[in-house]
Amino acid sequence: MKFTITILGCNSAIPKPGRNSSAQVVTLNSKPYLVDCGEGTQIQMRKSGIRFQKIDHIFISHLHGDHFFGLIGLISTYCLLGRTNPLHVYAPDGLREIIDLQISTTSTELTFPLYFSPIDPDRPEKIFSDDQMLVSTIPMLHRIPTSGFLFVEKERDRNIRKEFLNIESPSFAEIRNIKAGMDYTNSAGKTYSNPEITRPQYRSRSYAYCTDTAYSERILPQIRGVDLLYHESTFMHDKQPKAEERFHSTTVQAAMIASKAQAGRLLLGHFSPRYEDLQPLLEEARSVFPDTDLALDGCVFDIPLKRW
Amino acid sequence: MKFTITILGCNSAIPKPGRNSSAQVVTLNSKPYLVDCGEGTQIQMRKSGIRFQKIDHIFISHLHGDHFFGLIGLISTYCLLGRTNPLHVYAPDGLREIIDLQISTTSTELTFPLYFSPIDPDRPEKIFSDDQMLVSTIPMLHRIPTSGFLFVEKERDRNIRKEFLNIESPSFAEIRNIKAGMDYTNSAGKTYSNPEITRPQYRSRSYAYCTDTAYSERILPQIRGVDLLYHESTFMHDKQPKAEERFHSTTVQAAMIASKAQAGRLLLGHFSPRYEDLQPLLEEARSVFPDTDLALDGCVFDIPLKRW
Repeated sequence: MKFTITILGCNSAIPKPGRNSSAQVVTLNSKPYLVDCGEGTQIQMRKSGIRFQKIDHIFISHLHGDHFFGLIGLISTYCLLGRTNPLHVYAPDGLREIIDLQISTTSTELTFPLYFSPIDPDRPEKIFSDDQMLVSTIPMLHRIPTSGFLFVEKERDRNIRKEFLNIESPSFAEIRNIKAGMDYTNSAGKTYSNPEITRPQYRSRSYAYCTDTAYSERILPQIRGVDLLYHESTFMHDKQPKAEERFHSTTVQAAMIASKAQAGRLLLGHFSPRYEDLQPLLEEARSVFPDTDLALDGCVFDIPLKRW
Repeated sequence: MKFTITILGCNSAIPKPGRNSSAQVVTLNSKPYLVDCGEGTQIQMRKSGIRFQKIDHIFISHLHGDHFFGLIGLISTYCLLGRTNPLHVYAPDGLREIIDLQISTTSTELTFPLYFSPIDPDRPEKIFSDDQMLVSTIPMLHRIPTSGFLFVEKERDRNIRKEFLNIESPSFAEIRNIKAGMDYTNSAGKTYSNPEITRPQYRSRSYAYCTDTAYSERILPQIRGVDLLYHESTFMHDKQPKAEERFHSTTVQAAMIASKAQAGRLLLGHFSPRYEDLQPLLEEARSVFPDTDLALDGCVFDIPLKRW
C-alpha cells in the first residue's frame, strides 16, 4: 500500500550530470505512473530501479522539450523489448505528431497500441482513473498551455464497525457488499445506512505535481489539503521579476502556495541550472513553509498511510 | 596537435546506465566534431568535459533513433545558452523535418543558423573540409541508408630540408611559401620543386567510424591503412546468423575488417544490451586482431603523431 514519488530529474531547461530534465514516477501499490519524460528518462528509471515496462500511463505537462524529449526513446525501447501492453499518453495537442513522425522516419514497428489523449489546459478535468488512482489536471500559468496533475488515491474497502457486528450477523457475501459501501437490510427488514455501520480504513492520500507555472492562487481550491505538493521553484526569491517574466516561480512563492493550500509537505524542483548549490533555495522555502525538501534526482518520497 | 576520440555511448539500441546510445567526439587541435547523437549525448559531453559549445559540425550516420534522439535536446540547450555560431548537421534526408517540427511545436527560438546537409548513402563523398580535417562518407551495409565517416587530418606545413638551406638563403616570405608547398626560384633563375627541398612534418592521421553495418569488404579501399578504426560489433561470433539478419557485425567480423584494412588499431562498439560482461567480446576480437580495445563510455583514445 505504498504511495511513493521517485524523482528522475530536477533541473529546468538545461540538464547536467546529476540533475536531469523533468520526470517523476508516482507509484501506488507497485503500479508506476510516469509524469513528464525529459531526455534520459529511460536511463534514470533504470538507475532508480523502476520497473518501467509496468508503466501504462504517461502524463506530459506541456510541450517544452525538457518535459518530453525522452518519450520517443522510451517508446523505441518498449518496441525493442517487444512490449505488447497498450501505452496511454496524456499530453497537449501536438505531441502525437512529433512521435508519429519519428516512428515512421526511423522505420520503427510499434509492437503495442499507443494511444494519445489530448489535455485541455484551460480547465481542471478528470483525465484518468483505474481501480486505485484518480488523476485530474490542474491548469498552470505558463508561457504555453500547461497542466499540472493531481493524483488522488481511491478509497479502499471500508471497515465494518464492531458495534454493528455485535447486533447483526451478515453473511460473507453481505460483508463484502457492506465493505464496498452498500447499505444493509436484516431479515426483519431493518435497514442500516453504510456510513452508520462502517468507517474508512485509511484516509485517501494525494499528490499534486505543479510545474511549470508562475505563482497562481487559482490552483489553491484543487490542491487544498494535499499530502505532498511538488511545486516548481526555478529561481530564488531575489529573481522574482525574472520568474514572473518567464512564468516561473520562486522558492518563496512555492512555499506560499504550500502554506495557503495547507499541504502536508512541499517538494521543490525544476531548478535553474544557474544554481550549483541548492541548499539556499531549500532554506529560503523553509523560512515560509518548514516541511519542505529538495526533489533531487534519485530521491524517493513516501506518503505514509494515515488511519482515520 | 592532439587527435582524440571520446566515446560518449557504446550501446546498441537500448541504452542503460554506463552504456549510452551511440555518440562520439572526434577532437583535433582542441576542435571537437560530434559523430552521432543518441539520447543523453549532451549530458555525456558534460561528463567527459567536452566543450560542446565549440562543436560546429555534427555527423549523423543514419536515422535509427539510438543515433540521433539526443540532437533536439542539444539544439535546445544551444538556444538556451544563446549560441550564435552556425551549426552544420550532415545527415540522411528526414532529420531536418523531425528537428523543425520539434522546434516549432516547442516554440523554440533558434538563436543561431542551423544548416542541414543531406548525405548520399550510396557512394563515398567528401562532405566536409576545414583548415585541418577532411571528412568523407563510407557507405555502410545496413537495413536503412547508413554512412560511416572517415576523418583524415590535413597535411601541415612542410619542413624545409637542411641541405637546401645550406645552398640557398630564401627570405622570410619565401620560407613561408615553401613551407606551404610552393616551388622556389633563386635570383639566378634556378627553380627547385617543392618535394625536392621539403618533407612533410608528420604523417597525416586518420580515423574511420563504421556503424551500423553488416560485414562488408566493400569499405576496405576507403579505410585501408587507417590509424584507428571504430567498427561496430553488436554481437559475439556465435550470433553471426542473427547479425546478418539484422545487418550488424560480430566481434570476429569487425576484427577481420581491421586486419584486411591493415588498420593501426581497432575499437569495438555498439554492443547489444544482452551482454553484461564485454570482456569476452574483446577477447574474441583480439584472437583475430590483437590491437583491439572496447570503446566504453568515457574512454578517450589518442592517435599519436608520427614523424616520417
